[in-house]
Amino acid sequence: MKNKILAMAASALLLSACNKPAGNEVDKVVEIGEPTLFTKANDEAQRNVEKTFLSKVSGESLYKYHDMLASVPHVAGSVGDWQVIDSMAKAFEEMGLEVEVHEFWALLPTPVAASLEITSPDKLTLNLFQDVIEGDEYTNNAKVEFGYNGYSGSGTVESEIVYVNRGTKADFDHLKEMGISLEGKIAFARYGGNYRGYKAKFAEEAGAIGLLIFTDPADTGYAVALPYPEGPGDTSTSMQWGSLLTGLYEGDPLTPGYPATEDAERLDPADVVGLPKIPVQPISWGAAEKIMSRMTGEAIRDQSWQGGLPMRYRLTGGPDLKVKLMVDQKWEIKKSASVLGTLRGSQEPEKKIIIGSHHDAWIYGAIDPTAGTISVMETARIASEMAKEGILPKRSLVFAGWGAEEEGLIGSTEWVEANLDDLKQNAVAYINLDAAAQGPYLSASGSPSIQRAVVNAASRISHGDGSLLEHWLNGRDENAGGLTRPRFGNMGGGSDHTAFIALAAVPALGLNGKGDARGVAHSFYDNLNWYRQNVGSDYESAQMITNIVGVTAYALANSDLIDLDIGRYVNDTKMHLESLSGMKLSKEFLTLNEGQKTAADFHPIMEALARFQKATAPLLAGLDATKMSAEEISSWNKKIMAMEDLWLKPDGLPDRPFYQNMFGATDGNAGYAAWMLPNIRWAIEYQDNDYLNKVIPIYVSIFDDMTKVAQGD
Amino acid sequence: MKNKILAMAASALLLSACNKPAGNEVDKVVEIGEPTLFTKANDEAQRNVEKTFLSKVSGESLYKYHDMLASVPHVAGSVGDWQVIDSMAKAFEEMGLEVEVHEFWALLPTPVAASLEITSPDKLTLNLFQDVIEGDEYTNNAKVEFGYNGYSGSGTVESEIVYVNRGTKADFDHLKEMGISLEGKIAFARYGGNYRGYKAKFAEEAGAIGLLIFTDPADTGYAVALPYPEGPGDTSTSMQWGSLLTGLYEGDPLTPGYPATEDAERLDPADVVGLPKIPVQPISWGAAEKIMSRMTGEAIRDQSWQGGLPMRYRLTGGPDLKVKLMVDQKWEIKKSASVLGTLRGSQEPEKKIIIGSHHDAWIYGAIDPTAGTISVMETARIASEMAKEGILPKRSLVFAGWGAEEEGLIGSTEWVEANLDDLKQNAVAYINLDAAAQGPYLSASGSPSIQRAVVNAASRISHGDGSLLEHWLNGRDENAGGLTRPRFGNMGGGSDHTAFIALAAVPALGLNGKGDARGVAHSFYDNLNWYRQNVGSDYESAQMITNIVGVTAYALANSDLIDLDIGRYVNDTKMHLESLSGMKLSKEFLTLNEGQKTAADFHPIMEALARFQKATAPLLAGLDATKMSAEEISSWNKKIMAMEDLWLKPDGLPDRPFYQNMFGATDGNAGYAAWMLPNIRWAIEYQDNDYLNKVIPIYVSIFDDMTKVAQGD
Repeated sequence: MKNKILAMAASALLLSACNKPAGNEVDKVVEIGEPTLFTKANDEAQRNVEKTFLSKVSGESLYKYHDMLASVPHVAGSVGDWQVIDSMAKAFEEMGLEVEVHEFWALLPTPVAASLEITSPDKLTLNLFQDVIEGDEYTNNAKVEFGYNGYSGSGTVESEIVYVNRGTKADFDHLKEMGISLEGKIAFARYGGNYRGYKAKFAEEAGAIGLLIFTDPADTGYAVALPYPEGPGDTSTSMQWGSLLTGLYEGDPLTPGYPATEDAERLDPADVVGLPKIPVQPISWGAAEKIMSRMTGEAIRDQSWQGGLPMRYRLTGGPDLKVKLMVDQKWEIKKSASVLGTLRGSQEPEKKIIIGSHHDAWIYGAIDPTAGTISVMETARIASEMAKEGILPKRSLVFAGWGAEEEGLIGSTEWVEANLDDLKQNAVAYINLDAAAQGPYLSASGSPSIQRAVVNAASRISHGDGSLLEHWLNGRDENAGGLTRPRFGNMGGGSDHTAFIALAAVPALGLNGKGDARGVAHSFYDNLNWYRQNVGSDYESAQMITNIVGVTAYALANSDLIDLDIGRYVNDTKMHLESLSGMKLSKEFLTLNEGQKTAADFHPIMEALARFQKATAPLLAGLDATKMSAEEISSWNKKIMAMEDLWLKPDGLPDRPFYQNMFGATDGNAGYAAWMLPNIRWAIEYQDNDYLNKVIPIYVSIFDDMTKVAQGD
Repeated sequence: MKNKILAMAASALLLSACNKPAGNEVDKVVEIGEPTLFTKANDEAQRNVEKTFLSKVSGESLYKYHDMLASVPHVAGSVGDWQVIDSMAKAFEEMGLEVEVHEFWALLPTPVAASLEITSPDKLTLNLFQDVIEGDEYTNNAKVEFGYNGYSGSGTVESEIVYVNRGTKADFDHLKEMGISLEGKIAFARYGGNYRGYKAKFAEEAGAIGLLIFTDPADTGYAVALPYPEGPGDTSTSMQWGSLLTGLYEGDPLTPGYPATEDAERLDPADVVGLPKIPVQPISWGAAEKIMSRMTGEAIRDQSWQGGLPMRYRLTGGPDLKVKLMVDQKWEIKKSASVLGTLRGSQEPEKKIIIGSHHDAWIYGAIDPTAGTISVMETARIASEMAKEGILPKRSLVFAGWGAEEEGLIGSTEWVEANLDDLKQNAVAYINLDAAAQGPYLSASGSPSIQRAVVNAASRISHGDGSLLEHWLNGRDENAGGLTRPRFGNMGGGSDHTAFIALAAVPALGLNGKGDARGVAHSFYDNLNWYRQNVGSDYESAQMITNIVGVTAYALANSDLIDLDIGRYVNDTKMHLESLSGMKLSKEFLTLNEGQKTAADFHPIMEALARFQKATAPLLAGLDATKMSAEEISSWNKKIMAMEDLWLKPDGLPDRPFYQNMFGATDGNAGYAAWMLPNIRWAIEYQDNDYLNKVIPIYVSIFDDMTKVAQGD
């Protein structure tokens, strides 16, 4: 994944310190009753399907897939990348799946050279390579490059430095308030708090001529864990590779909104919004300490800017400290591919449940992404075996290994763009597993309509002394006590579900097994040796993930009535409206709206929601496949699929046309989090009252249209 | 003070992180109306008294007193101590006050020698001296000893080490649960979280043969401030001196409960509970880092055990790491003294308001205690000047500089023990100023009945563009918005108010000016150079403290009706009962009480409170000096004083007979915090149901007796 670890860790910390959930959104369940989704005969058969699936999940098999997919460095477009693509395709073929190697030609970065020196007050060359670890054969690989950030600008810059904390919008605003200019300076940021692409974007906008991004030991180093190899934490030479691409579209930056085929029309890179011009370099805390210890300027004023290096952090380096950064990076159109294996459904083969995880990695990627990709492979293997035994899913199961996710969700986006109409019409759900199996504690993010299916699936899987649902509810979070339904995160950005949601309104689910192992993501040390030492070589977490993926997928594939809980949108929309109501609105924004009850007058939407709920709640709760004809079932299923599509409006967000799903989008300033009801959120963020007044009626129409579809013939 | 800084800092941190007050006690004001305390003529005169006082407060004068009291090292019983005692007595004499040099002969520690070495895996002698700072003449003093903890045991020990975090009860419990034994080991603790005496007590009880206590940079070092001299933070050689005395009594350990006169009968030190037997040594983080970096045992399991040293903290040093500690310390009976200056009241001279701060310090003590003591001197100077101008207080003002506070509140306790009957009968209030003026933000702790007087005083003092009360309410705490009454802390332990409250039930107040300057308390760097550089040489904080002390003291001294808000006990007792009701009770403890509504059935107390409130609320609100005869006023004043004394019960707490005030006591496991309604708290802490059943009726009788006194003739 595009590395969410820090954002999650910070949120967990807040949670445990304050004994209350972070954020304003309280999980209030509106009970609408459970429909009966299976006919009687199919219901019994389904219990056997699940039992069979669960009996075949194998730690040994997962271990082998891990070896297959994470033994060589395989960044997108490289020789290693094609080795992995070929292995995956071959494995799917051997399983008997219908295989598609979906090639794309995308703008990809290749590091050529980089160097970093302190040139004043003394001369010192800083190390941009990670240490070889004795006993970890994977780190003993001369082919592994220095650390780099994909899509960095090229060039040599030398200047004073300014510390910008996490490099968020708020951080740059704070510097501006203090009168500290970035103009002509090299920005010195630490990882975490946002997607690194925004650090570069904001630094460039502030006038910085270069950017260094260091891994702070407070986040993933000694302050939270013993460093590798003794523990899982980042070492003094750990660096975080990662992309800097931001932009109006996800996917290949030169073919926005359409497939990156070999002969596609392409933009000139110079015309692309979101490709940085300044050189950007990730560095280790070992290197950062050498810079920080030479800073002589004013100390930080906000305690939250302090990190784990053993000194007071400062805002400026002072005039005596000069740093020289050279980055040389090629951006070339290279070929890579996503690999898909389809097990055709026996009754509605055009309908599909897609289960995916990317296969590309910055280096080895034993955690990111392969800790998820192995469960895609294992689910595919078992489903194929079951098919050979005559147990076929009713709808198709599509297994996907996406290419070039790390550079900008490229493989999945290109595939979605190429299959848009089919996905809108036929994709029941997308399950994403990027880097999933990292520990014993299950966690999930999901579109509202998919949550019921996975919760019910968990209740039918044994785990330890009870069910997986009980394990999930108990979780690691000591405050979980009393929950009767697991909490789901919102679907934010940073992984391959994005295009499915944004362009095709496919309900999506992300699953994770979380543990205590921290650090090393996107680094050299994210390899099989680290994984087996710190997560374990028994693959229990990956088995858990495979169990829940398999049972959920078969439920979605086989239920007579499609298991999408459309009524959940009532609850979640209300929750998100409440959260948006709590956002800070400027006085000017309020004044614009004098005729309205509040600046953001959501009453029309609430009323539409109420109409929708009144019209559909009895209908949804009363759904009973055992009492419906095949025709009635088929008719309802069409309606359900059509209702999801109502969230799509082709305009997208004003500044990001890619995000066409009005229920949720990727955060526009930080990149990993979610903006829920994003068109309203956008209006609030940018205090645009005209836009707000324009989109509120559209939300009203979505629910009114849903009501019509539900009630229609 | 016996150094509360860390505990307060941690609590402030929690507050700001969570946007809610720490602890369960919500400040609910029960409004009972304000009485009229002055006759008309006296009310007008009082406004002039206050105006005159405020016009005379001088930063220059405070500066000079600071020089007078903090220019030489002056630990209790030393040559420097007697220099300070003589200067103070001389100053009081020159002011024309009645001077008492109250001598006492107490067991006091003298460091002879100390050394600390790593003996395995390599040999390294660790530094126990603090660095001389260029430009800070005070640090260039060869007479200053190595750092030490007063009342350390003497001896040489060599062993493996075990990290015990803050050395709290909970920390030692955590180690026991993990099966990590301290038996025969040297405990390695960091400062903060409790009074260091308890670190030593618990370490010794756990079988440790020695204890090292280090200053963690996470608390007062680079993690929170630039180190001195560039900023206020602790340097790599900062050490925290401090006493280790715990025990059944405060004051001189050899004369528990009675004055330590020259010829008093004395206990054998071997028979005293609370004098450690093991050697204990404070160390800097520079020395601690050398030890911590050689530890090879298991890493900490609880993230809150991590500090600011640049490595993962570990629980054990492992068998290869051996540390050798030698401490040689003499405990001798030495003479020191408290210095008191009395300005006799013009009308009720036997009644007194006492304003005190200790004068002794571990080294220079420019912050602790002198940042408070200078305001005692300044208030005394101004009051004397006013007396010469004919403005005399109606009741006496007693100005006190206490001796040997740092070793165990010795001077103040010995004076209270020597004047017990008079204080019970005649002391209206005690105002304590230990280390008070450290910054611009006013904060206070106080007995319930004294809070109204200081709040009203603050409302009558100009400060910046408004009143001091407004400044106080706005405070530093960004969550303060909406408060209409400042929050008061409970009177805990660790300074000279303790004996006044515990033995004589004198309502007490503690005032502080807080700022951002962190660190160096109880160290070599707590000197005039540090203070003037980091707090300022304008003495604005000390002027603010003097202003509020003076106006409060004159209000207490001059009001016709004594300004003790006895009705406030209703509100605060309820609040503390609510807090105690929320404490964790064991199942066994609950079972013992089947006949009762809850384990801690406070209903009888609540009913007595209700009776008291019903009987006195109209009476208290209706008090009006303008309508009362002199005899009525005098009669009411006797009642008020008598009511306060009802909190005293001579048994004290079961294990600490010193604490005879049933409203509040010093925390019994941590030493700085407060136990409110301590006899109930004790019963809950030790799950002693019989004791609980015994003390509840006593609390009932206190309020019933107050009702009787209020209603009596």
